Amino acid sequence: MGGDHGPSVIIPAVARAVKRLDGRDVRYLLHGDEAAIRECLASVGDVASLCEVRHSDRVIAMDEKPAVALRRGKGTSLWNAIEAVKTGHANGAVSAGNTGALMAVSKLLLRMQSPGLERPAIVASWPTLKGITAVLDVGANVTSDAEQLVEFAIMGEAFHQAVHGSTKPTIGLLNVGSEDVKGHEEVREAHKLLREGGFDFDYRGFVEGDDIAKGTVDVVVTDGFTGNIALKTAEGTARFISTLMKDALTAGPMSRMGALLALPSLKRMRARIDPSAINGGPLLGLNGIVVKSHGGADAKGFANAIKVAADLAASNYAQRIARNMERLDAAIHAAPEAETVA
Amino acid sequence: MGGDHGPSVIIPAVARAVKRLDGRDVRYLLHGDEAAIRECLASVGDVASLCEVRHSDRVIAMDEKPAVALRRGKGTSLWNAIEAVKTGHANGAVSAGNTGALMAVSKLLLRMQSPGLERPAIVASWPTLKGITAVLDVGANVTSDAEQLVEFAIMGEAFHQAVHGSTKPTIGLLNVGSEDVKGHEEVREAHKLLREGGFDFDYRGFVEGDDIAKGTVDVVVTDGFTGNIALKTAEGTARFISTLMKDALTAGPMSRMGALLALPSLKRMRARIDPSAINGGPLLGLNGIVVKSHGGADAKGFANAIKVAADLAASNYAQRIARNMERLDAAIHAAPEAETVA
Repeated sequence: MGGDHGPSVIIPAVARAVKRLDGRDVRYLLHGDEAAIRECLASVGDVASLCEVRHSDRVIAMDEKPAVALRRGKGTSLWNAIEAVKTGHANGAVSAGNTGALMAVSKLLLRMQSPGLERPAIVASWPTLKGITAVLDVGANVTSDAEQLVEFAIMGEAFHQAVHGSTKPTIGLLNVGSEDVKGHEEVREAHKLLREGGFDFDYRGFVEGDDIAKGTVDVVVTDGFTGNIALKTAEGTARFISTLMKDALTAGPMSRMGALLALPSLKRMRARIDPSAINGGPLLGLNGIVVKSHGGADAKGFANAIKVAADLAASNYAQRIARNMERLDAAIHAAPEAETVA
Repeated sequence: MGGDHGPSVIIPAVARAVKRLDGRDVRYLLHGDEAAIRECLASVGDVASLCEVRHSDRVIAMDEKPAVALRRGKGTSLWNAIEAVKTGHANGAVSAGNTGALMAVSKLLLRMQSPGLERPAIVASWPTLKGITAVLDVGANVTSDAEQLVEFAIMGEAFHQAVHGSTKPTIGLLNVGSEDVKGHEEVREAHKLLREGGFDFDYRGFVEGDDIAKGTVDVVVTDGFTGNIALKTAEGTARFISTLMKDALTAGPMSRMGALLALPSLKRMRARIDPSAINGGPLLGLNGIVVKSHGGADAKGFANAIKVAADLAASNYAQRIARNMERLDAAIHAAPEAETVA
């Protein structure tokens, strides 16, 4: 029921996902208003056999405060979808609904894997010159200590492997320079832990802001404040340049003619930075798979979010995370304690 | 002598600046190897009458550590240029040299205006849909408390007015959302100070990463860690999209023909995001004007950095800053002190 469009986009998205995931045994629990869902299902062809509708009377509105969602959320479609993950009826949940409510309900029902994490981290799949780089956290944890930054590395690595198909993802830690002495205490400490913790991944050290779009590494780790600002700054820059470009290509008859000739190439270019193709990021750090779709996603975009959940569920994602978390725990306890001053 | 090219670019840049600043009484002290400077001067026409060469035997290398520059910097061209500001022989210094050394020597010789600032802040002039937005700090102060963030606002406002010609610049504080409760403690406290401090500028509250390129405000304030990463992320994104665009417009004969037709418009577009046109940012917070040019700047770019210094020197920049700094001081001392627990 979530997102800007509800079942009118979600159900066609399910139909797309069914096609895209053909050959994989994926089935769908659809939570929400049964009549509305059935009506949409009737118009998308033969997918009903893979779907089961779970009726719910109520929904959480897109502008509901997370605290209200927690208090009055029970029995809503969003709540029921997460509960199905908790009870093992579903291997993962996908929602285009209210982000704050989704986080709060997921955290309440599924609990965080690690006590250090205040709330789930959000990962962005970022198109680069070399493919897709996973950047996290992009919004949930406003301050992050060294241990949390290492947890982001662990979760981002497992995500990149499960969803973007890398076999040995490379990890970088976002900083303002590449020397060991650069940056604030948290990043320097995380750098040390990542180098010395014996993790099962390929840590490459510090990277800078321009390394993201270069695709220097597969996973870029940062705190939620910096990550959110980097992501939105990049979106703003991309829109700025697209606007200038559009203005340039429609300025006068010669330019318009030129644009027309170059149109097929320009369309192929657009496909490389199509937001639908990278829609869907898991809420990381939960005991269970919950994928957030952009609220305004179209059917193609939401189908991609479904694929992210299916890829995660089919992978050894949770085990990879668990193994590296054990190493982190060992590394932290092996470190000499700070002296206590009486 | 600084930058990637030394006098072979700096002297032609002076010649450009002389033309651009025609009618304003600007004269030039040129610090460095006299023979090399005179040779370059001979080939740029009639500017020697406005220039005075101050010979120095030594230079600070581009890769010299700041600590070394401080120890052995005396008598180098960079040192002498800053010293001329200190002694009042020059109204400002412009350098394309080693950034760390320039900061360290400037701080030593000119001292910081405010004891709170660890080192000078760097301001970036950012092209936006509406003009130029000043973003600071973009690199020097890795952590910034609320008071420092307010100081950035004060200095950025005076800079925007002096250099980009706004009469009443608008200020925004970079955050991960627009509500008062968003962000970490430092930004929330700075937000309160900026709203209630009675400053002589137009504070508009929190802005997000995508507001920078939109040009929502004239001055965007943030700590040096976030600002540096935002700037480099934007540069990376711009390069990424330009690369895709170039690939698209050279893919096959039809696209190439189209690009050719649109070329004049595309060139006009490039001019809007030409780095030379925005080169030169002052080191803010010093008792004196020091402008840093990009090391790789061409003559047009370095001429722009000279114009920045001339604009600052001709403005009431220092007085504006001093007045608002007094207000900040009053606001901080008016605030009730935290209770002391025995």
